[in-house]
Amino acid sequence: MAIERLFIANRGEIAVRIVRAAQALGIHAIQAHSEADTDMLAVKLADEAICIGPAPSKDSYLNIEAVMKAAKDTGADAIHPGYGFLSESPRFARAVEAAGLIFVGPTADTIERMGDKVAARQAAIAAGVPVVPGSEGRIDVEDALKVAAEIGYPVMIKAAAGGGGRGIRIASNEAELRTLAPQAKAEAEAAFGDGGLYIERAILSPRHIEVQILGDGDTAVHCFERECSLQRRRQKVWEEAGAACLDEPTREALCASAVALAKAVNYRGAGTLEYLYDEATNAFYFIEMNTRIQVEHPVTEMLTGVDLVAEMINVCGGAKLSMTQDQITRSGHAIEVRICAEDPFMQFMPWPGVVSKLVEPNGEGVRFDHFLSEGYQIPPFYDSLLGKVIVHAPTRNEAIDKLVIALTELEIGGTKTTVPLHLTLAADPEVRKGAFHTQWLEPWLAAGHLIATKGDAA
Amino acid sequence: MAIERLFIANRGEIAVRIVRAAQALGIHAIQAHSEADTDMLAVKLADEAICIGPAPSKDSYLNIEAVMKAAKDTGADAIHPGYGFLSESPRFARAVEAAGLIFVGPTADTIERMGDKVAARQAAIAAGVPVVPGSEGRIDVEDALKVAAEIGYPVMIKAAAGGGGRGIRIASNEAELRTLAPQAKAEAEAAFGDGGLYIERAILSPRHIEVQILGDGDTAVHCFERECSLQRRRQKVWEEAGAACLDEPTREALCASAVALAKAVNYRGAGTLEYLYDEATNAFYFIEMNTRIQVEHPVTEMLTGVDLVAEMINVCGGAKLSMTQDQITRSGHAIEVRICAEDPFMQFMPWPGVVSKLVEPNGEGVRFDHFLSEGYQIPPFYDSLLGKVIVHAPTRNEAIDKLVIALTELEIGGTKTTVPLHLTLAADPEVRKGAFHTQWLEPWLAAGHLIATKGDAA
Repeated sequence: MAIERLFIANRGEIAVRIVRAAQALGIHAIQAHSEADTDMLAVKLADEAICIGPAPSKDSYLNIEAVMKAAKDTGADAIHPGYGFLSESPRFARAVEAAGLIFVGPTADTIERMGDKVAARQAAIAAGVPVVPGSEGRIDVEDALKVAAEIGYPVMIKAAAGGGGRGIRIASNEAELRTLAPQAKAEAEAAFGDGGLYIERAILSPRHIEVQILGDGDTAVHCFERECSLQRRRQKVWEEAGAACLDEPTREALCASAVALAKAVNYRGAGTLEYLYDEATNAFYFIEMNTRIQVEHPVTEMLTGVDLVAEMINVCGGAKLSMTQDQITRSGHAIEVRICAEDPFMQFMPWPGVVSKLVEPNGEGVRFDHFLSEGYQIPPFYDSLLGKVIVHAPTRNEAIDKLVIALTELEIGGTKTTVPLHLTLAADPEVRKGAFHTQWLEPWLAAGHLIATKGDAA
Repeated sequence: MAIERLFIANRGEIAVRIVRAAQALGIHAIQAHSEADTDMLAVKLADEAICIGPAPSKDSYLNIEAVMKAAKDTGADAIHPGYGFLSESPRFARAVEAAGLIFVGPTADTIERMGDKVAARQAAIAAGVPVVPGSEGRIDVEDALKVAAEIGYPVMIKAAAGGGGRGIRIASNEAELRTLAPQAKAEAEAAFGDGGLYIERAILSPRHIEVQILGDGDTAVHCFERECSLQRRRQKVWEEAGAACLDEPTREALCASAVALAKAVNYRGAGTLEYLYDEATNAFYFIEMNTRIQVEHPVTEMLTGVDLVAEMINVCGGAKLSMTQDQITRSGHAIEVRICAEDPFMQFMPWPGVVSKLVEPNGEGVRFDHFLSEGYQIPPFYDSLLGKVIVHAPTRNEAIDKLVIALTELEIGGTKTTVPLHLTLAADPEVRKGAFHTQWLEPWLAAGHLIATKGDAA
């Protein structure tokens, strides 16, 4: 049953992306929007639009009942959840399935299973995918010494009941573990009333590498990897495809592991397996799976030429994957930077304003996914992402050069943006060398590296 | 000697394309402009700009002395001629060479040789490239019968001294040739005072297919073919890569023939060999070579991922080709349409105006090369090309679907454009089937197929 009327339960740039993909496939695009999003670009581009509630997300984009009612009222036969909002809600996916509509994503059961960190880890282990070595469940101090001897130091000691980083200690050797484990236990008891501990190998400055997969329920393929190590507050700000730090055998093993897990869970749609990569030991460890399209999917599209959103719509509509693994090739290097309405010189304070001017970058190897138009009032209720500049070139260095040109051409009047952050990063020698990891960006910012550049005039 | 300061002796969208390519290569971009082009986008983007004279092209973009003086005054070490204007002038290339500057294109000798139709035909024959079979030079009626018997009917009888279509007859068989040749001779004598005739095989409704080549003076590669059969007054309006009508063996033979000729003339830079393709007999015939970058080069870039402008700059700066033939692969299908400031409902009358609004298409597989900005006054002195919308998708049909979406999103306020022509073409069943040739578009327009669509509001 091919999809004929697709309901888009999201907003912003990803809604525009999905509307276009649907229309290019000859599918009627029905755009949901909150009362604050009446003027957004996806509403203008869609074939039909419907209001699903007031501005706060909980009353509209996160309101399962409102979304389902609007989807039924508009005669939709499928719902695309985008990213964020309800995209990884098993309850939502189940509601869509129960209503006899197609959820453009995996089954509710798969979302639920892969959304549970313990279940996902077990599925990964069963599929032969490396995970961060550690104790399975809570252990006492003596067991911790045994497990640590097996998995190797340094190890991270975590409170089983913990969260927010409390109770965490890093031990570099047995003596430290003997000293620190009781401290951690005491702190955990004090903080959570539960002194249970578990330990795992500490990967101190990992790189974040992820593999894009596509599945049709029967088989799965990968579209190679992305590196997203430049993060601020665990939010990716700059993403690349592929990961320049990987050698070819490691890349192959990494991507093969992702396909093995995707096949093991009969994955349907587009998904991403996230890994930590330890450069020192050339080892990668699965950490979690995102069962949806991701913000950074365009770098993979530019690297491989695969239209991920079209493909996920097609397979969820019942088609088989349109390509075999052999037909997916990588060429050159792609980089995406997130353009947010934030002031990078003021702790990235959100800066919603009216877009007084818009000049877009374009040309060979340049893509600008956004939802802006001149006169558009950026609503203050949502994520500050305005768009993404994506570039593709034969080499990583040439891609950075092209990024600089595209960012210099981009003009978004009326709001502060994160363009200065990206221009400063592009000029940084460490970034040029690709010498960074997930713990790199925040100290770099704290050290005052950010400099004023074009693009910071509100 | 790598290029460090590139002088761009052109305007419009190709100047923007070249400025960006230069800057991405770390090259200082110096933009030439006429007095009418002070505000054009390439001037704003370039690192430096210089006025080369008044608005009429003969006084600026075609004025070799003015261009050379400005290039020297700005310390340029190379000149990119773009397309049109001086790009295929051997005299200009020779002036650049004589001044010790790099001409971003082939040598003046190559331009001269390939610009002479007879010399180019001889070079093609010597390289084993098929040309339209015909008499070599002028012949009388009895010889015409012999040659026609060899090359096969129908044949075209042309006046050796002719031009503008006068004196041309098509003979489908010997009897017709016996009747028509003397008529043609008499007409030619009356018109030109010279009754000399020559004949060649008539290819009645050929398709226009061309091969993109790149050379570094030592070796050459092809980047596959384009089809540009949709033409009005011999101007291409819609171009594709590849040519959907070719089978794989024909494509390989065609591209191999282009490489053979490029190698035979030690070609340097980007060039295009144009062919007529006779669908009925599956035969292709070289007609001429363009020794420059072409308007439609982006479809090849999207098909292959090769940055043609960067590559031509690099090889002309002395580098070897950055890729081997094996590394150049094709994927999917790309289409370009030319967006001109013309009223397609008024015999394509030029319609220069002030750009009151600009909304750009973008997203996955969409590229918009242009030189517009809001408030820009389109000068009345030049070619009406405003830009090109280029799309790429896995199949030709999907590319057309994507083109429709991109053209529907595009808004250029303040001028009429050719968008309605392209939207009508995209909806035409024959265009969808790819069932057209170089003689198809004009009768189609004459038959009143063009319909009003979005995009025709001035």
